Amino acid sequence: MQQPEPQSFDRVLSSMCTEPHPAAREAAERYLATNPGDPATYESIAALEARAVELLATVTDHPTPTDATGYVTSGGTEANVQAVRSARNRHDAGDVNVVVPESGHFSFHKAAELLDVELRTVPVDDEYRTRTDAVEAAVDETTALVVGVAGSTEYGRVDPIPALTRIAHDAGARMHVDAAWGGFVLPFTDADWSFADAPVDTLTIDPHKFGQAPVPAGGLLARDAAALDALAVDTPYLETRSQATLTGTRSGAGVAGAVAAMEALWREGYREAADRAAANAEWLAAALDERGYDVVDPELPLVAAAVPEPEFDALREAGWKVSRTASGELRVVCMPHVTREGLRRLVADLDQIRR
Amino acid sequence: MQQPEPQSFDRVLSSMCTEPHPAAREAAERYLATNPGDPATYESIAALEARAVELLATVTDHPTPTDATGYVTSGGTEANVQAVRSARNRHDAGDVNVVVPESGHFSFHKAAELLDVELRTVPVDDEYRTRTDAVEAAVDETTALVVGVAGSTEYGRVDPIPALTRIAHDAGARMHVDAAWGGFVLPFTDADWSFADAPVDTLTIDPHKFGQAPVPAGGLLARDAAALDALAVDTPYLETRSQATLTGTRSGAGVAGAVAAMEALWREGYREAADRAAANAEWLAAALDERGYDVVDPELPLVAAAVPEPEFDALREAGWKVSRTASGELRVVCMPHVTREGLRRLVADLDQIRR
Repeated sequence: MQQPEPQSFDRVLSSMCTEPHPAAREAAERYLATNPGDPATYESIAALEARAVELLATVTDHPTPTDATGYVTSGGTEANVQAVRSARNRHDAGDVNVVVPESGHFSFHKAAELLDVELRTVPVDDEYRTRTDAVEAAVDETTALVVGVAGSTEYGRVDPIPALTRIAHDAGARMHVDAAWGGFVLPFTDADWSFADAPVDTLTIDPHKFGQAPVPAGGLLARDAAALDALAVDTPYLETRSQATLTGTRSGAGVAGAVAAMEALWREGYREAADRAAANAEWLAAALDERGYDVVDPELPLVAAAVPEPEFDALREAGWKVSRTASGELRVVCMPHVTREGLRRLVADLDQIRR
Repeated sequence: MQQPEPQSFDRVLSSMCTEPHPAAREAAERYLATNPGDPATYESIAALEARAVELLATVTDHPTPTDATGYVTSGGTEANVQAVRSARNRHDAGDVNVVVPESGHFSFHKAAELLDVELRTVPVDDEYRTRTDAVEAAVDETTALVVGVAGSTEYGRVDPIPALTRIAHDAGARMHVDAAWGGFVLPFTDADWSFADAPVDTLTIDPHKFGQAPVPAGGLLARDAAALDALAVDTPYLETRSQATLTGTRSGAGVAGAVAAMEALWREGYREAADRAAANAEWLAAALDERGYDVVDPELPLVAAAVPEPEFDALREAGWKVSRTASGELRVVCMPHVTREGLRRLVADLDQIRR
């Protein structure tokens, strides 16, 4: 079979992944044949992973970045699953629950099913942020974890993390922040989301999203080592003691790429990318609003607008990789590969379709 | 931080991964910025994944390769976890168990802990193969899955798969074969291990091991679609209906690399690699035996020998990436990157150490 061309990113507006930074691509290619899951054999990639964790801890304002605990996951799903698993394993109750806003990523549904944990879904307010009163009502002594979202998948919203953390801790539960997508944009906003903003226990932040690392490079960080210790499984035959990851063999390309991207872009490069993305989202939101669509105000660089289904379908027909929220709104994620020129073409195509 | 050099494979004798085939490396580099976890956005890599599954089904003698169900996992751990999860979800009993030989990979311990399933470990015989009488005694009506190993991690042994499958099915359980490491060598042996040799339900086979694909590329295959349907979780915001994988975003590099490796090497290239590996293992086993070490006869290309700890430590000191079995034996995995010349140097170093 002749291998087809990989998609071009020209018309990709639906993905939370993006084109890797050139230095990240190069590092990934060099480390393609390495396995950070076997650090006694692949020593140099293990050293790079320690560096990746330190950099992620810096981005997330961890109190002691050089002592931070965490690892490079296959993505946000693994990080979220592991956060739920850690909280489950650390809780005394036999049957525990996890409280997740309805804006939470579907990986929490996957985690609950996988881990045999009850999922308590709580509603969001009119601005798509988790209602603290609903979380307050949902938690009890069998709640192992409360999840707050910092950059939701559908509307890019940031939950009130400090208030949710207080509610979680008052109930004896752990607090997890899902900043998988938002993590490399949030440092340049005034949102409260990081280890410095509240005593959160675990946090997801993915280099392979706004971090501009190649897939697969997610990140799980913990305030203290006990969170990861609760995940460790013995590993006979590897010359290391135990393994806390969900997967076994892992991608060295992802780890090396994440380090290279973060070293190239933290902090000013990420700021520029975040500013550009925010400006693009504002521009698109205004353009859609002018045309009479109902637009959800973009808090982070993600635009949702009530575009009727036939117009949406016509955009997909025209080759635009766009996707919908559960309520059917058009959803455009302004990742670093998305340009103003590309958005102009999208709007021009939409004008053409509406004619 | 100056990125360190990736390890050379010259002295890597402990890994079940290897240097990727050149065509596989090239394909992986081309597809570095793709995500098979989002097939509506990344269409060409989704087409390649279908091809990967068809090729894996051919290697494992699936009765209908073009209709086979499966996907490219992050590795054997994910595939094994998913097999246990599927069997758990398909079983009627509330609390189920999985019967795993003591030679089973530690990913089954991880799976049991993760999935809250009881792990029933059964002993192996003097030849390190699962004792069928012990499995017979361990299964009951709450057994969801029996695991057989086709190429064990420590000694490269193949369990009596047809007999284990009969026992599993008689008890109303599913049968899973873990051929993560052995899968690309076993077609060239007379072992019974494949979908053609017994009505096994699910099977793990990793392209990134003997398949010579780059990391991360594991494989989960199922006899029928119901096994994967039992894993599906709804996916709002992706323009696809559901997702059966453990992770969310996945590596297109792994998928494209796996296809390229299998198209380049199946079937004669793999046969040559398997023959070369077997000859190397025989040579090393004989060399160690001549020197008075107690050697476990290499059924597949993996040599274990009772080398005393000080000598083992001296080999690691000398830069050899070797590992030990749980019983402390030296363990050498004769992967495609391992050459006769390299093994001669290992034995020469050992002679030097013993002097």
